[in-house]
Amino acid sequence: MRAMDKILYGVAYYDEYMPYDRLDADIAMMKKAGINLVRIAESTWSTLEPQEGIFDFYHIDRVLKAMTDAGIYVIIGTPTYAVPSWMVLKHPDIMVTTEKGRSLYGARQIMDITNKSYLFYCERIIQKLIEHVAAHPAVIGYQIDNETKHYGTASPEIQREFLGYLKKKFHNDVEEMNREFGFNYWSNAIHSWEDFPDVRGTINGSLAGEYEKFQRELVTKFLAWQSDLVREYKRKDQFITHNFDFEWRGSSYGVQPDVNHFHAVTCLDVAGCDIYHPSQGKLTGAEVAFGGDLTRSLKRNNYYVLETQAQGFPEWTPYDGQLRLLAFSHLASGADLVEYWHWHSLHNACETYWKGLLSHDFAENQTYQEAITIGRDFQKLGESLIHLKKENKIAILVSNESLTALKRFPFTGGITYNDVVRWLYDALYEMNYECDFISPEYTCFSKYQAIIMPAFYCAPEETLIRLKEYVREGGVLVGTFKSCFANENVKVYHNTQPHILRECFGVSYDQFTVAEEVGLVGEYCKVEDRELVNGFMECLRVESGNEILSYVHENWGQYAAAVINSYGNGTGVYLGCMFSKKLLKKVLQNIMDKANIIQNAGSDGFPVIVRSGTNTQGKRIDYLFNYSGEKQSAWCPQKRCQELLSGKMLQEKDLIVIPKWGVIILEEVL
Amino acid sequence: MRAMDKILYGVAYYDEYMPYDRLDADIAMMKKAGINLVRIAESTWSTLEPQEGIFDFYHIDRVLKAMTDAGIYVIIGTPTYAVPSWMVLKHPDIMVTTEKGRSLYGARQIMDITNKSYLFYCERIIQKLIEHVAAHPAVIGYQIDNETKHYGTASPEIQREFLGYLKKKFHNDVEEMNREFGFNYWSNAIHSWEDFPDVRGTINGSLAGEYEKFQRELVTKFLAWQSDLVREYKRKDQFITHNFDFEWRGSSYGVQPDVNHFHAVTCLDVAGCDIYHPSQGKLTGAEVAFGGDLTRSLKRNNYYVLETQAQGFPEWTPYDGQLRLLAFSHLASGADLVEYWHWHSLHNACETYWKGLLSHDFAENQTYQEAITIGRDFQKLGESLIHLKKENKIAILVSNESLTALKRFPFTGGITYNDVVRWLYDALYEMNYECDFISPEYTCFSKYQAIIMPAFYCAPEETLIRLKEYVREGGVLVGTFKSCFANENVKVYHNTQPHILRECFGVSYDQFTVAEEVGLVGEYCKVEDRELVNGFMECLRVESGNEILSYVHENWGQYAAAVINSYGNGTGVYLGCMFSKKLLKKVLQNIMDKANIIQNAGSDGFPVIVRSGTNTQGKRIDYLFNYSGEKQSAWCPQKRCQELLSGKMLQEKDLIVIPKWGVIILEEVL
Amino acid sequence: MRAMDKILYGVAYYDEYMPYDRLDADIAMMKKAGINLVRIAESTWSTLEPQEGIFDFYHIDRVLKAMTDAGIYVIIGTPTYAVPSWMVLKHPDIMVTTEKGRSLYGARQIMDITNKSYLFYCERIIQKLIEHVAAHPAVIGYQIDNETKHYGTASPEIQREFLGYLKKKFHNDVEEMNREFGFNYWSNAIHSWEDFPDVRGTINGSLAGEYEKFQRELVTKFLAWQSDLVREYKRKDQFITHNFDFEWRGSSYGVQPDVNHFHAVTCLDVAGCDIYHPSQGKLTGAEVAFGGDLTRSLKRNNYYVLETQAQGFPEWTPYDGQLRLLAFSHLASGADLVEYWHWHSLHNACETYWKGLLSHDFAENQTYQEAITIGRDFQKLGESLIHLKKENKIAILVSNESLTALKRFPFTGGITYNDVVRWLYDALYEMNYECDFISPEYTCFSKYQAIIMPAFYCAPEETLIRLKEYVREGGVLVGTFKSCFANENVKVYHNTQPHILRECFGVSYDQFTVAEEVGLVGEYCKVEDRELVNGFMECLRVESGNEILSYVHENWGQYAAAVINSYGNGTGVYLGCMFSKKLLKKVLQNIMDKANIIQNAGSDGFPVIVRSGTNTQGKRIDYLFNYSGEKQSAWCPQKRCQELLSGKMLQEKDLIVIPKWGVIILEEVL
Repeated sequence: MRAMDKILYGVAYYDEYMPYDRLDADIAMMKKAGINLVRIAESTWSTLEPQEGIFDFYHIDRVLKAMTDAGIYVIIGTPTYAVPSWMVLKHPDIMVTTEKGRSLYGARQIMDITNKSYLFYCERIIQKLIEHVAAHPAVIGYQIDNETKHYGTASPEIQREFLGYLKKKFHNDVEEMNREFGFNYWSNAIHSWEDFPDVRGTINGSLAGEYEKFQRELVTKFLAWQSDLVREYKRKDQFITHNFDFEWRGSSYGVQPDVNHFHAVTCLDVAGCDIYHPSQGKLTGAEVAFGGDLTRSLKRNNYYVLETQAQGFPEWTPYDGQLRLLAFSHLASGADLVEYWHWHSLHNACETYWKGLLSHDFAENQTYQEAITIGRDFQKLGESLIHLKKENKIAILVSNESLTALKRFPFTGGITYNDVVRWLYDALYEMNYECDFISPEYTCFSKYQAIIMPAFYCAPEETLIRLKEYVREGGVLVGTFKSCFANENVKVYHNTQPHILRECFGVSYDQFTVAEEVGLVGEYCKVEDRELVNGFMECLRVESGNEILSYVHENWGQYAAAVINSYGNGTGVYLGCMFSKKLLKKVLQNIMDKANIIQNAGSDGFPVIVRSGTNTQGKRIDYLFNYSGEKQSAWCPQKRCQELLSGKMLQEKDLIVIPKWGVIILEEVL
Repeated sequence: MRAMDKILYGVAYYDEYMPYDRLDADIAMMKKAGINLVRIAESTWSTLEPQEGIFDFYHIDRVLKAMTDAGIYVIIGTPTYAVPSWMVLKHPDIMVTTEKGRSLYGARQIMDITNKSYLFYCERIIQKLIEHVAAHPAVIGYQIDNETKHYGTASPEIQREFLGYLKKKFHNDVEEMNREFGFNYWSNAIHSWEDFPDVRGTINGSLAGEYEKFQRELVTKFLAWQSDLVREYKRKDQFITHNFDFEWRGSSYGVQPDVNHFHAVTCLDVAGCDIYHPSQGKLTGAEVAFGGDLTRSLKRNNYYVLETQAQGFPEWTPYDGQLRLLAFSHLASGADLVEYWHWHSLHNACETYWKGLLSHDFAENQTYQEAITIGRDFQKLGESLIHLKKENKIAILVSNESLTALKRFPFTGGITYNDVVRWLYDALYEMNYECDFISPEYTCFSKYQAIIMPAFYCAPEETLIRLKEYVREGGVLVGTFKSCFANENVKVYHNTQPHILRECFGVSYDQFTVAEEVGLVGEYCKVEDRELVNGFMECLRVESGNEILSYVHENWGQYAAAVINSYGNGTGVYLGCMFSKKLLKKVLQNIMDKANIIQNAGSDGFPVIVRSGTNTQGKRIDYLFNYSGEKQSAWCPQKRCQELLSGKMLQEKDLIVIPKWGVIILEEVL
Repeated sequence: MRAMDKILYGVAYYDEYMPYDRLDADIAMMKKAGINLVRIAESTWSTLEPQEGIFDFYHIDRVLKAMTDAGIYVIIGTPTYAVPSWMVLKHPDIMVTTEKGRSLYGARQIMDITNKSYLFYCERIIQKLIEHVAAHPAVIGYQIDNETKHYGTASPEIQREFLGYLKKKFHNDVEEMNREFGFNYWSNAIHSWEDFPDVRGTINGSLAGEYEKFQRELVTKFLAWQSDLVREYKRKDQFITHNFDFEWRGSSYGVQPDVNHFHAVTCLDVAGCDIYHPSQGKLTGAEVAFGGDLTRSLKRNNYYVLETQAQGFPEWTPYDGQLRLLAFSHLASGADLVEYWHWHSLHNACETYWKGLLSHDFAENQTYQEAITIGRDFQKLGESLIHLKKENKIAILVSNESLTALKRFPFTGGITYNDVVRWLYDALYEMNYECDFISPEYTCFSKYQAIIMPAFYCAPEETLIRLKEYVREGGVLVGTFKSCFANENVKVYHNTQPHILRECFGVSYDQFTVAEEVGLVGEYCKVEDRELVNGFMECLRVESGNEILSYVHENWGQYAAAVINSYGNGTGVYLGCMFSKKLLKKVLQNIMDKANIIQNAGSDGFPVIVRSGTNTQGKRIDYLFNYSGEKQSAWCPQKRCQELLSGKMLQEKDLIVIPKWGVIILEEVL
């Protein structure tokens, strides 16, 4: 069997970081835990190239040999996201220059990824490394760089490149730029390209948004360039992946602001990501599902979780059962690899308290004990669980441009783009509706029965026209406040809002405000429920369709808060403000019911989450997860199936009791 | 009739910012709303001088022509508060250098207003512009620059100028400076002028205060210089004004720290300002009254509100009735012009969500609808309402120097100078006592029956002597804690506090502290009212007069908190600490009663505010405002008068019902 | 009698800062208050050397003369902690360069104490000054510099010196450094010394910790160098001291992060410090005791309080009785000098509101009145109270290295090293257990019956072995969480924790977490007491000994929270987490009872604090302090003694009533 057709259970392994020679001992512990993959070499450039042009593959070679002997697969990471000090001392301009000036050496991810000296060294180390390892039988694939971003690069050189980019965008017509970006404001207009100022000081949201878009494409280009380099040397059967990450709020939270994942993924064979999430009493599975759904959507295929926490931060040390619950949660979203960062806890530097599977003493701690059961079950059930496929009926439309623009033009009250995305995603997740993610450039809207469009602020007309067509032909479109407001250049549309989709949603508005104790009332919500608007709100006028929610307020009571409208063969729903997730779930359930979109069966929703798909044998797989510290009841959602862990056979509606932090896996019996 | 003898109702208008040609459509909408003035050109330098030395008055010309045709007056703003990028690329030192280094290009108000290159370009654009427009009949006046400040300028050049200023101040005697500023402390003394260090690092409050005073005078000089330039070209019948603004706390709050308005106003024909204020449920009218009273006091004459919000920030979108209430509130303080910033909401850049009278779609929104009624009533009632004059009996003494010093030596608990000013002002405002503002240099104290002196920390002996004389001759002086403490050089007086006014107030103290649960008791305040001291408190000993308030505390109970004292023919009142506005109102009412100073009649105070004056026909005008969302009762304060909006005749004590957020205007019938 | 054999009662005096000639008037007031010492010259360099190489001892001379005439002793401070501006203008690199770049001139303590130009000027002014004053009879000693620290110095020059230091530490073997500091992580390894990067950007906790240790030794060297300079010129009978200070949290709080007091003290004759503390209702005496115990421990001898507050910040203005209570509190810890910073309140600069004994008006305020009583009693009782000696049975082991490391690897919840130190110290203080402080290098552990070891994170093996031996031989060792975790290079130990002391404490653990509502239960603590873990907690497994506290939690209930264990002839106690001080006191009392360690008798603990010692006549002295605003009862702890202030004789168990904020002093009658 190909390595890629097994469930891969891995760890990031750093022979270089060990306080003493642990290789044999570690491998024995890995084997005991069923670990069948390690990722190595990532971020170890100063070990691989200790002096300029001198290469040392000692650690690589000994680990590869030992892993081959042990039958453990290896992913080789290119080491480029942390640079050696000799390189920076020789070429100080390798350090990224941002709004705050030039970075000091020390951390990772502080170089200018467009700097020519950096690229020269990158190219050489990648070539040397891949050439050295490509033929090795244990090596099944490559991770290029790690969590790559643009690091805010704004050196004079890159700004010059940006100027060229703008000239091209505006057909060399500086006045077109002035108009489109509104540069006349505050005397920002330029009338000759050489007057273009340092972009770091700009107060113009259009220019700032364009620069961030440009910066994101630097990441796309850099990864494509690395991918091409690796591809020259790698074997055909070896894959290329990358470890994408998400907006970080102390844990993985939302759409990544600094990378366009949909663009950057094109150079990869397999999409990959890392997912770090709250744990203990705060574990809900939402981040695992969110990150998984998003990463799966990138190539519309299975993906790799290249990093996730074993113990992680001290406040994340998992309760008994949680590590196991999480491992299967990843598979349930379509992951084919679950890899811990990292094998052992570090004894020095700065991530000493981001603990690995092993603690600092390398003993068999409680978490490792649980990993043993996971490895065993992955091995046992691998054939049934690998390559899980999904055909979701709902898509969430996400937009890097909107995220960026709303950083500059925030909702009042500290709410951000990703809060709106997660508000909707989490409601669906808790209701057991699974979904994909799509970008504004996605062209097959009709594949979905419903599209959810959170705060689609920077909305190109082209996309809006296609969305309108989608509804006319029968689609359900759920939009929110702050959607369709500006174009792709963060220029606000100057006709009635919501632009283009006004008839589709059956609403218009020309004023909005921020709620001070504004209530909500409607079909699913009585005045005495005391549901309140959360922050920003649009003063909607209903032009067709039905008011779902109205405002309760001395002055704003005259306006609608949410409207549902028939348009063509489809339905438009517009939510003019944010409110409790509880009420949102009622609203969404109603919409889904009308549209005849059925959620995964088996539970009444969170904390029992049901995730579903089809395995390589064409059988339906249902995962039932209990994300709580109390045992929970559920029922069998399939006609006839087998509970894979126990082997028990079940029939539809059979009662299922899931222990606290437990998981049940059902495989269809055909 | 002269334009200046009509009530002007205006908007800031930017043809340059329009997403498409709106001029005719906009003018039609302005006419419909009774708008009879626009301010243009302000901040559009990059449009007016697209390349160095190339001038383009396209937008000016077309707007002037269209406005003339429509009978709409025009104020021309000099465009100098936002610089074009070509200028900065050529002369990087135009960007202001502050404590944080040199600014990056992008925002407005980031230039060094003393930089010679900047001044060269300013002079040229002003001359070209004014020369170009001066003869135009629609142009009735000029606004020089906008919200000018010193922007923290601290370049080596300006510091050299400051050194010259210090030499002059100290008669070239460096030891005099050492003594007066206390430079021996921490080895800061210099014994030769060339040893004068970079002022940006100073820890000396006297030097820092002097530097800020010097910086404020840079603003005075800059405006005077612009005024002289404009005056060379303008017609005699055209006025010069400037848009002053106030300490900003998300809205206009208090005395402007960075400009000495009393000094800077001398070069103007008409004082002007912008006032932005909380709205919706937080609208009280206090900021409109405060800003108006202060600006009216500058030239002791009517003034222009050159900017105020129409919709403003999303959280400010006015409730029905509020825009109208506010328009008349400005007139009631003596404004002759009410101008919105701005006509239309911007589609790009950074103030996209500071919404104008029109929303982004240019439709007739709810706020615009209300503006129509204002324009109509301004036109109808203009003759009665224009040039309202006041003869206030109370003055509040404000001091830039005290404000600056108390930034360095703050009250504990985050209270600042302007908090004390507003504590007293707002109490008077809510009691329907109107007042003027005066500076320490003001010489006609006897014009007022009472002077209120909040935290007059930096008090020149000369002023204190005049204040003492004022009381001896019959005036009422209400002083607070932290008054008369230091001289104009922020040197603490070294004899018994309060300096010079000790006998006038009948108190002295040599200790102070910060209250931890210290109560207050007195004639208007029982122990069981649980009135508490708010922060800083002085341990007053009564030397003559009567204790109004005493402290309630195990240790501080031995001291007085507030004292009233007869001195000569007058009265001194000293408040040793801050406390609730409710208690303050009782204290003030008592003082005013004793001094026989009567507030405006017609209501029992906030939320019904009465503002009063005399119109050009010598008739008394009373405005009764209801700053609440409930209808309120009031009574007719005049013998015989006409309610101007309804035409109804009223007699003294007649009941008046004011609708929520409503206004009643009464004109005396002689 | 030698000056040093009297109780010294002093003030910092600055003739240089006076607004007018006050010398005679001040001396008269000092005499009235019994003040017998002034510290002068400190921080007045710009007065002493007004221009480069020109010296002016005018103020020194006149003050020395006047003090001699008045019989007041003088300490001369070297003026070097605030530099004149001429020096910095000539040698800009005297200003310290830190992570944030080079400082601006203005404040004190902003120079690079290793800069050669600075040292040149220091040497000259010290030589000139000491030569000038040494023979003067009033001068009894010298304070070198003031509150010296390294000010974050990180200039290229000092980094080069650091590189030399590292080469020496690692025997010129760069790979040894890579291994010990874990530099392979994130590609930080260097393989040639010239690749060593700017240390300011490092993310490596070992390197950062080593750099801070190196910086602390710069302070040690600088003070030793100054001491040597002074020693060349001073008379034999004159002492050298220094004013150490503590971690600052708006008042003196804990172990000083930037100086190793145990090292720096070696060049001094007498240890000195300043202690500033909360006052009024927040006065507990804990800071006075903490700072005193720590400073007394440095030379294991009496010490000088070179600065403490008279009035201090406005919120510190003492209640009646508190100044007096505090003066005796210092003596009770072993101070021989109590000196106020400062005589008079400053009229300019930045510490205007750090008020001295006199207010700005130089009048006899309430605080000064109280000082008169102190001076009188110091004089009267001096012979009994001077040179108080203590033989404490408990020592607290403190570690600069642990403090530094835990800044980089903080406990979750904002708790820091010094919080743990104070948690334990304050509990002992409130229970009337007195203690000394020791460093990890201290070699006579057996002097103590118990050693308390708060968060001894960076624990050299050598010290741990000695501690183990200490317990085996009968000592009581109380350790906490985060102890024995890493070595002196902040490298985490890679075997079972707690390293080396596992058998001594009878516990081990390999996981830890952060408590979310984790309860505690045990012998002194029922579940219903609802005692909760505060933040970080270790999951202890008991290997021998008895569980004192267990966790109450669904997942963590399986682990112990605190354990007591017999080991050899001694006892190890390990506290795995932090909890309330109330519970800690119960735990500690129990440990002390078992170990037969008796606290000072006379009260049931705070707010009545008993501090004890032996005077020069070999008589026991007991101080009983009432740190509260209510009178308190205590009892006579001695067989037979005299109450020194009243002269009354007392016998054991006699009732003693202490007035609010009062003090009782008992001298043994032999």
